[in-house]
Amino acid sequence: MPRTRGDHEARRREVSEAVWRLLAARGFGGLTLRAVAAELGATTGLLTYYFPAKRDLLAHALDLLEQRTAARRWSASEEGPRGLAALRAALLSVLPLTADSTATSRIWVSSWEPALTDPRLGEDCARMYGQSRAKLSDLVAEAQARGELAPGDPERIAAGAHSFVLGLVVQALFDAAAFPPERQVQLLDDHLEALARG
Amino acid sequence: MPRTRGDHEARRREVSEAVWRLLAARGFGGLTLRAVAAELGATTGLLTYYFPAKRDLLAHALDLLEQRTAARRWSASEEGPRGLAALRAALLSVLPLTADSTATSRIWVSSWEPALTDPRLGEDCARMYGQSRAKLSDLVAEAQARGELAPGDPERIAAGAHSFVLGLVVQALFDAAAFPPERQVQLLDDHLEALARG
Repeated sequence: MPRTRGDHEARRREVSEAVWRLLAARGFGGLTLRAVAAELGATTGLLTYYFPAKRDLLAHALDLLEQRTAARRWSASEEGPRGLAALRAALLSVLPLTADSTATSRIWVSSWEPALTDPRLGEDCARMYGQSRAKLSDLVAEAQARGELAPGDPERIAAGAHSFVLGLVVQALFDAAAFPPERQVQLLDDHLEALARG
Repeated sequence: MPRTRGDHEARRREVSEAVWRLLAARGFGGLTLRAVAAELGATTGLLTYYFPAKRDLLAHALDLLEQRTAARRWSASEEGPRGLAALRAALLSVLPLTADSTATSRIWVSSWEPALTDPRLGEDCARMYGQSRAKLSDLVAEAQARGELAPGDPERIAAGAHSFVLGLVVQALFDAAAFPPERQVQLLDDHLEALARG
């Protein structure tokens, strides 16, 4: 029976799902062509059709991580919070406050080592973080327009707030006892209150 | 000729130097027993005398990184700055503002993947970060006593400031063009000014 386009896409989806299972279980440190082949019960040779080199596998994994994070992430909608509440929701969505977001945060942090080693992956990461800062900057500007945040360069305030939550992610992952969810929220609210006062 | 204690220590130092050269060149992602053996021109078998397992090698590398960072880090002294200026200097010393501190920051970030995977390494990291927060907390309290920072729980303020600089390290490493040294310093000063106002 000839292979159809549907077969091809189904196979591609299977490969992506195997990559995601490995990422979730072991992070980027455990992601190799050999491991994906074993997960699929396929040969490493077959996998080179999808990923000619390891960096292609890592780039695909980074895409998957971004897609899954975006799907989970709070996004502005007609019904959702606006202004400062929307900024707070966006920043909270970065923090490891639940088992699910903790797992995703661990995968993100594990992506930084390969991303800092491979220039193309590094550019992918830089682009993603740049997009996040741009979104945060829009939310800062909206909160300022509503009089909820003090005046100031929205990009600069967004870069600071993004730094704050990224560093809090790292600390909370290493010391969950010192940074339970309520502590993380408290620290973020301290930061936002300082921005409100200006 | 019998081997002396001096021989033994010299050999240990050689091993440490080889580990450090590899870390500097490739980060934690490139650190394997095989790579250290190659760097030393020794067999992997000989290396197991120093590092029975890979985690022992990684733990030693983390120790070396901490020692080298501590040696470079600004530390309180009779002649140095006090109060808020001392807090600022301590936070600046974490940021990738020079080629040397950028290289060290990259190694730190590359240590997070193995440290989040291995519980013992994770505990080592948690302890180091806890010590950093405790030092920052003392500096916050001193700055408050001098009337340079607004009142508030020093530990909480220190945890926030530490998060801020760790996240700024990550962003600056991925996007050096968007975060040149003067931008990093400006963002840190924004954070400190907000703490001063309270």
